[in-house]
Amino acid sequence: MYKILTKDGRAKRARFETVHGVIETPVFMNVGTAAAIKGAVATSDLEQIGTQVELSNTYHLHVRPGDETVKKLGGLHKFMSWDKPILTDSGGFQVFSLAGLRKIKEEGVYFNSHVDGRKIFMGPEESMRIQSNLASTIAMAFDECAPAKAEREYIQNSVERTTRWLARCKTEMRRLNGLPDTINRCQLLFGINQGGTLEDVRVRHADIISEMDLDGYAVGGLAVGETHEEMYRILDVTVPHLPEDKPTYLMGVGTPANILEAVDRGVDFFDCVYPTRNGRHGHVYTDHGKMNLFNAKYELDDRPIEEGCGCPVCRRYSRAYIRHLLKAKEMLGMRFCVLHNLYFYNTMMKEIREAIEKHRFAEYKKEKLGRMSRPEMEKGE
Amino acid sequence: MYKILTKDGRAKRARFETVHGVIETPVFMNVGTAAAIKGAVATSDLEQIGTQVELSNTYHLHVRPGDETVKKLGGLHKFMSWDKPILTDSGGFQVFSLAGLRKIKEEGVYFNSHVDGRKIFMGPEESMRIQSNLASTIAMAFDECAPAKAEREYIQNSVERTTRWLARCKTEMRRLNGLPDTINRCQLLFGINQGGTLEDVRVRHADIISEMDLDGYAVGGLAVGETHEEMYRILDVTVPHLPEDKPTYLMGVGTPANILEAVDRGVDFFDCVYPTRNGRHGHVYTDHGKMNLFNAKYELDDRPIEEGCGCPVCRRYSRAYIRHLLKAKEMLGMRFCVLHNLYFYNTMMKEIREAIEKHRFAEYKKEKLGRMSRPEMEKGE
Repeated sequence: MYKILTKDGRAKRARFETVHGVIETPVFMNVGTAAAIKGAVATSDLEQIGTQVELSNTYHLHVRPGDETVKKLGGLHKFMSWDKPILTDSGGFQVFSLAGLRKIKEEGVYFNSHVDGRKIFMGPEESMRIQSNLASTIAMAFDECAPAKAEREYIQNSVERTTRWLARCKTEMRRLNGLPDTINRCQLLFGINQGGTLEDVRVRHADIISEMDLDGYAVGGLAVGETHEEMYRILDVTVPHLPEDKPTYLMGVGTPANILEAVDRGVDFFDCVYPTRNGRHGHVYTDHGKMNLFNAKYELDDRPIEEGCGCPVCRRYSRAYIRHLLKAKEMLGMRFCVLHNLYFYNTMMKEIREAIEKHRFAEYKKEKLGRMSRPEMEKGE
Repeated sequence: MYKILTKDGRAKRARFETVHGVIETPVFMNVGTAAAIKGAVATSDLEQIGTQVELSNTYHLHVRPGDETVKKLGGLHKFMSWDKPILTDSGGFQVFSLAGLRKIKEEGVYFNSHVDGRKIFMGPEESMRIQSNLASTIAMAFDECAPAKAEREYIQNSVERTTRWLARCKTEMRRLNGLPDTINRCQLLFGINQGGTLEDVRVRHADIISEMDLDGYAVGGLAVGETHEEMYRILDVTVPHLPEDKPTYLMGVGTPANILEAVDRGVDFFDCVYPTRNGRHGHVYTDHGKMNLFNAKYELDDRPIEEGCGCPVCRRYSRAYIRHLLKAKEMLGMRFCVLHNLYFYNTMMKEIREAIEKHRFAEYKKEKLGRMSRPEMEKGE
């Protein structure tokens, strides 16, 4: 179901077949935390901007509207009217970043809801049940994302527990996929590599989970405070220890430059809130760097955000109009910027796929990075 | 350019030809205050929901981004990418309702911007120049909308000044339409009838302005605090004194019931913020009354807002999903409700036109009002 079509250096160009359709990789998954892309972007919009995979957050949907509710409504695909692949994260990252007081035990994590403060317990089995109720295409294993600056001993213990949790996730997912009233009985499970910036821990963990025959493998716990160089170094040493013939997913990453560097290191799944979050603040991506549309110099600029861009916004609306909308606090301004940014990311992934197919990825990467850092524009993040 | 196709009682079914295309009346103009429909609705969306005329606010656009800026960008049509008719109000209503300390003089009104407090002067000539810069299809005359509870003497003086202002508007508009660098040299001017709830003042004013050969006539200063019955009474006595062979516009009105009653009294242009404002609060219109989508009873309701509705939202998304979006404060929830509500209003106007054509408007009105007030749903406003 996962097939490498070609490689260019370490960069993989693959095709991943799922019950909800084919994913051409490298792919950037568009983040819709609470079953909606922030910025008033509908699934009907996603169909116009080349989105292949939508990503929703297990923790958020468990808290509201509740995964049981989503199940009663036929699962996430029916709920949000999206028939292409959906990946749900495990809830782990949010438990560790959003929730209030929490207690980590062998069985799982006790914490308080960030919405109403009520006590919630989530362990590997709970995460799998929630994701099975949501009926996403791809479920992520429940892991601990250890603090960026944790001690070696903490990280080692955490990673070992995450490995035990992964085994429990796999067992529970197999059980759930066998139940007659499960909506998506072909739900896939990706494991997550952890280990902070400790190369030996990362490698040992990668070796262990690679033996567990999962549907895909993610590198988690990066882009949480370490430098870009540290992240690239961890990818350099870790990715070779993950199965090449499975999807390789770098969670929560990143800038266009991060993605280009990670593709070069064998990663082919990405997700990040940058294009949506930056869009909501009027920051838009172009081939010549990032622009802040609040800038006064765009007041009379009747050009599209990016000349030649085929997105629904650039085909019709000007920088001057979008700047006005942002200044006037019209939601439409945010929507336009988010749409353009997602189109930019999705289109860059398409360019990356084409470059790998033509075995000119190194050349493409150099050109793209060169263009995006031209001094006349604000630099990319 | 304005042609009555048929009448049914006092209800007019007309066609109004403008440089930006034909307006079939009765028509409901969709309000986009600051050159955008609030709720992240783009002009590309308006094309999907049967919008004929977009209405923008002169005062808001004068303050931000500035009418000179809009002119430099080619006028409002180019600015917001909308090639159908646009009506701009005169700014008068906002000056009297939004602005801070103001002083009314014969020459115009001195007031402070509600955005940055700076002093602004607006009189008939200024309003015409601003609207000429915006280059809307239809400009509204600069008038005073007297307070709902003003004394007879105040209202009489105010109406007389509004008449003098109207003459100045007409002179200035003719001059502006003759200038070579005016964007829309065919800009139309509608006069506005005032007089509060004083029938004799309304009628005398209507008679006077009817002699001034304007492109259309509005009834202003209603729906500002008087009862619906008072409003209908004023229409009953005033509309017969306005030219039947010109558009008849009831400003800022109203609920579906208000519109049906006003059409029955010869009105054929409407605008109102209800569908957009209510939509942003999760209140949606249906043929069976208004629904509050925040209501818990919609949590598991997988039906569209209105079964059989052809709007882009009802064709695809459920009450349960929209309720979730609203509860999760996702902008998309607001956008969906606004889109549905505007479609509801635009579609009701289409039904009204068809009913008049078939000379069964009275029957249609009775049916529609009966359906919308069914007790099982929340009642219309």
